[in-house]
Amino acid sequence: MEKKSGIIVALDIESREKALMLALEISDLIDGIKVGYPLVLSSGISIVRDLSKLTKVICDFKLADIPNTNKMIALLAKQNGAEGIIVQGFTGSDSIRAVVESFSPGEVYSVVEMTHPGALEFIQPVSMDIARISVQAGVNGFIVPGTRPERIEIYRKNFPNMKLFAPGIGVQGGNAKKVIESGADFLIIGRSIYESEKPRKEVENIIDSIQ
Amino acid sequence: MEKKSGIIVALDIESREKALMLALEISDLIDGIKVGYPLVLSSGISIVRDLSKLTKVICDFKLADIPNTNKMIALLAKQNGAEGIIVQGFTGSDSIRAVVESFSPGEVYSVVEMTHPGALEFIQPVSMDIARISVQAGVNGFIVPGTRPERIEIYRKNFPNMKLFAPGIGVQGGNAKKVIESGADFLIIGRSIYESEKPRKEVENIIDSIQ
Repeated sequence: MEKKSGIIVALDIESREKALMLALEISDLIDGIKVGYPLVLSSGISIVRDLSKLTKVICDFKLADIPNTNKMIALLAKQNGAEGIIVQGFTGSDSIRAVVESFSPGEVYSVVEMTHPGALEFIQPVSMDIARISVQAGVNGFIVPGTRPERIEIYRKNFPNMKLFAPGIGVQGGNAKKVIESGADFLIIGRSIYESEKPRKEVENIIDSIQ
Repeated sequence: MEKKSGIIVALDIESREKALMLALEISDLIDGIKVGYPLVLSSGISIVRDLSKLTKVICDFKLADIPNTNKMIALLAKQNGAEGIIVQGFTGSDSIRAVVESFSPGEVYSVVEMTHPGALEFIQPVSMDIARISVQAGVNGFIVPGTRPERIEIYRKNFPNMKLFAPGIGVQGGNAKKVIESGADFLIIGRSIYESEKPRKEVENIIDSIQ
């Protein structure tokens, strides 16, 4: 993932038509689109291929299975044109490595923290260890919490070569400028853009706010 | 999930045709079919609906996202006829509860242990805690390691009301009879059945071996 504007749009929606219309409208302004299972299950995996003709697509599948199943899913994402994929680092080194090996030359990003309250129970206590084994397993970046810039600073300092992707910007409370200043490379923004009456204007405003 | 033979077939394949042919051949002998993302991404989520006309379908999506995304995915599975769904317990109470609430009256099963080596890094050390918070969040059962009957005994003893599903039987090394004797309710069996030349005969042999 190369950085231009630093904006990645999360399409947490289920409508194929809305996804494609939005991508057409803003693809020149953004670095990529993140799609998850709600859209892919509703629209079929061909939505990944269709979107990949307009911009780079990251499959946010939060892969959390045994190595062989992770590999099968990663291959399907790659075959359909995805350039990035997201794994749950919690599942361990071999599960991550299976994705890194099968998805290459695409990039793999590991979830090292999450922002919902339940993440405090098991993920947060081991997040630095998840980050370390993710690097050893060959990932290209981390998903870090956009709502906690102080945590992003820690990842930036300890993992200077990792690309940092921060979701939770906008409606969920993360401040775009603060998150970029904390060291994030990419802002992942969903509702603020796809629920906007004027999504293109909204993207332009965010770009202005971080430059 | 009601128990008759105790056999659930894991369709870890990508061919829609093979999946439906196999289901037709053995549906009267088994308690259900477990499908994962490799089949669903290859065939479209309609494969869940098609299979659900033949037997009960458990969507093994290992849900590992924030509560709202987990909910969206669970609703799609339910709308397509799934009667069971599998969550990754490590994602925490609220992520599990979102699935329990949205998937009802379908049943939710939580992964509390996994059998690959990487699971020893983060999951295994907290597996009993994952089990406890899963029960509190309202799940109906656990996915337990069929390769470790001594662990199944512990879950059986500590969680008498939970349905226990044991994958890893057959090719992966788990012994069907031993696993049932350890207290598992359902055997999840994949390759031994779907790679067999005579899958119906194979299922009958397994049923004989555990009775």
